[in-house]
Amino acid sequence: MKTVSIDLKDRSYDILIAPGILDDSKQLRPWICGQQVFIITNEVVAPLYLEKITNSLAGKSVEKMILKDGESVKTLRTAQEIFDRMISVPLDRSTTVIALGGGVVGDIAGFVAACYQRGIPFIQIPTTLLSQVDSSVGGKTGVNHPQGKNMIGAFHQPQRVLIDASTLSTLEPRQFSSGVAEVIKYGMINDPPFFTWLEDNINLVMNLNEDALEYMIEQSCRNKANIVEQDEKEAGIRALLNLGHTFGHAIETSTHYAGWLHGEAIALGMMMAGFMSKIQGEFSGHELVRLESLLDRARLPTQPDRSLSARKLKELMMLDKKVRHGKLRLVLLKGIGQAYITDRYDKTALDTTLEYFALD
Amino acid sequence: MKTVSIDLKDRSYDILIAPGILDDSKQLRPWICGQQVFIITNEVVAPLYLEKITNSLAGKSVEKMILKDGESVKTLRTAQEIFDRMISVPLDRSTTVIALGGGVVGDIAGFVAACYQRGIPFIQIPTTLLSQVDSSVGGKTGVNHPQGKNMIGAFHQPQRVLIDASTLSTLEPRQFSSGVAEVIKYGMINDPPFFTWLEDNINLVMNLNEDALEYMIEQSCRNKANIVEQDEKEAGIRALLNLGHTFGHAIETSTHYAGWLHGEAIALGMMMAGFMSKIQGEFSGHELVRLESLLDRARLPTQPDRSLSARKLKELMMLDKKVRHGKLRLVLLKGIGQAYITDRYDKTALDTTLEYFALD
Repeated sequence: MKTVSIDLKDRSYDILIAPGILDDSKQLRPWICGQQVFIITNEVVAPLYLEKITNSLAGKSVEKMILKDGESVKTLRTAQEIFDRMISVPLDRSTTVIALGGGVVGDIAGFVAACYQRGIPFIQIPTTLLSQVDSSVGGKTGVNHPQGKNMIGAFHQPQRVLIDASTLSTLEPRQFSSGVAEVIKYGMINDPPFFTWLEDNINLVMNLNEDALEYMIEQSCRNKANIVEQDEKEAGIRALLNLGHTFGHAIETSTHYAGWLHGEAIALGMMMAGFMSKIQGEFSGHELVRLESLLDRARLPTQPDRSLSARKLKELMMLDKKVRHGKLRLVLLKGIGQAYITDRYDKTALDTTLEYFALD
Repeated sequence: MKTVSIDLKDRSYDILIAPGILDDSKQLRPWICGQQVFIITNEVVAPLYLEKITNSLAGKSVEKMILKDGESVKTLRTAQEIFDRMISVPLDRSTTVIALGGGVVGDIAGFVAACYQRGIPFIQIPTTLLSQVDSSVGGKTGVNHPQGKNMIGAFHQPQRVLIDASTLSTLEPRQFSSGVAEVIKYGMINDPPFFTWLEDNINLVMNLNEDALEYMIEQSCRNKANIVEQDEKEAGIRALLNLGHTFGHAIETSTHYAGWLHGEAIALGMMMAGFMSKIQGEFSGHELVRLESLLDRARLPTQPDRSLSARKLKELMMLDKKVRHGKLRLVLLKGIGQAYITDRYDKTALDTTLEYFALD
C-alpha cells in the first residue's frame, strides 16, 4: 500500500493507494465517527462499486444518492436537491459524506459536506484518474455557474482518500486520457524527471499496467501536495496548478461543458500556454514538440479546433477567478518543469495564441 | 471608540463601536484591499445608510444589491440570485463584500462571500441590535432550509465589523427587544454581574441611552468572543451560546419564520430552558422569576402561546443541528450565569415543558 500524507495542520489527512482497498473495510470504518453515512455517487459508478462500499459499512445507517452522470449536474440546483434529501432523512451533524465517483461527484459532494450544517466530515473514493490525481489533494469543492466553472465553492479537506487503481480499467478511454492530462501537467509545472518518466512509460500507462499506474498516481498526489501544503488557500504558488486551466476553463465554458472533457481542455490549454510562451521567447520549439508528442501519445487534443472562438475565449478568460483588479494572471512556461505565474505578458502573444488555436 | 478584538489566529479581526463610525471612511477604506466593493443590504436599511457608506467609498468601484426585508429572503435561491449578479458584473476574487443591515443580510452576505470563488473578504456593518451583539462575533454564515434554520452555511470570519449604536434609534421597538434577548442570554450563560447590570439598567437601555447601549454591546461582544475564541467551530463549549435556541429555532421553524422574531423565540426558549431546569431541580423558582421579569421589562414574550404545538416543536427539535447520534443536546441552567450542555436530561421534564408552553 502506498500512502501520501497531506500535511495541513489540523486538516491533515492520508491518501491510501492499494489494489482492493474498496473492499477493505478496516481502511474505511475507523474514519467514520458517527452512525450515519451518506454516499453520493452517480449512475455510472453505482452499479460498479456501490455495493462493495455499502457492504463494508454493515451496521452503519447508510443513505445513498445517485446523481446523473456528467458535469451538467454540478450546479447549485443539484446541491439544493442533495440538501433536501439530507434534511428529509434527517442526517445529523455527525454524518460522514462519502464521495464515490469522479471529479464531479467529489466536487459537489465535498461542497455539500462543506455547507451542510456549516460543515460535516467527508471521505473521497475517487474512481477516475482525474479525480485520483487532482481533486483528491487540496480540498477544493464547488459547483459551476452557467458563466463560470467552480464559481461557487468552499475549501473543505476530506478525512481520508481511498484509491484503487483497478477502478481505472472500467473507465472510458477518453476519461482516462483526460486524467493523464493532469498528470502531464505536474511534470510540466516543476518536475522534469517525472515528465521524462512519463515519456518513457506512457505506453505502460495507456495499457493500464498496475505498477505504472500506482507510481504515477502517487507521484502526482505528492507533486500536488507539495504545492498545496505551501499554499492551502491559493494565495500564491498554488496558482501554478492552473497551468493550462485559464485557457482550458474558457474552452469548457464556451462549449457549455459539452464536447470537451476537462482534461482534454487542459491538454489544449497547456499547448496554448506553451505556444504563447514560445512566442514570448521563453519556451523552445523543441520543448513544445515534446509536450505535443506526449499529449498525443496519451490521445489528447493538441491541435487548433473549429468548435472554439478566439473572441469568446478571451471574454471568458477575463471572467476567470485568477483575474485581479481587471488583470488576467496566466501560468506560462520557461521550460518543461518550469512554470511561473504572471500578469505581465505580451498581449499580442495572447491574441495570436487564441487566434491560432480557435478556428471559429 | 470601543474596540473588541476577536482573536482567531490568522482569522482575527476587530469590532469597532463608536458614534458616527459609518461616516468615518478611514475606519473602512484601509480594510478594502481590492478595487471592487459589493454592498449587500435591504430595502429598509438602504434609504437610511447606503448613501453614507457609498460616499465613504469614493474612488472604488461600488456595486449594490438591495434585498427585500425579512427572514424569508435567507434562502439558497436568494444566494443564487446574488451569485448571478456578482458574476454578471463581473466581480473578481479581490472584491470585498459589505454586509449592511441586520442578521439576515449579514448571514446571507457572509455565506455568499464564503462561497463566491471559494471565499472573498467581507466587512460587516450591522444595523440591528441582534446582529451587533450576535452575528458580529463568530463568523457563522448561512441560509435557511424550509425545514431548518441555518441548515446550509459556512464559517467565514469578517475583516472588520463597524458598529454605530445610533442606528438603533431607527430600529422598530420589537426588533430592538429581539436583540436584547440575546444580550440577556450572555448574562444567563456565564456572566452574573452582567445580568445584574441589565436588571439595574434595563430602563436606560430601553430608552436608548447611548452610553448604556455602547457598554451593553461591547460587553455582549466580549462575552461571545470569549466563548468563540475557545471553540471557533463549535466542537464544544460554543454550544452554550445556543441557550434558548434549540427551543427557539423550533418555534421559529414551526411558525415558518413568521410572527416570531428571532429574539422573541429565544426569549421564550430561555424561559423553557429555565422552566425545564427548574423541574429537574437545578434552577430555583426565584431565578426563573428574575429571568421572566427582565425579559418582561425588555418587552419580550415569556408566556405560553397558542401559536405553538408541543408535538411539532418536539419533532423539529430532533432535527436540530445539535442532535448527535439521535440524541438531542440541550443547554440547561444551574443558575443565572451557569448554563451547561447536556444530552442526559429528564425526558418527562422536556415533555412537560413543551406541553406547558405550547398551547395548541
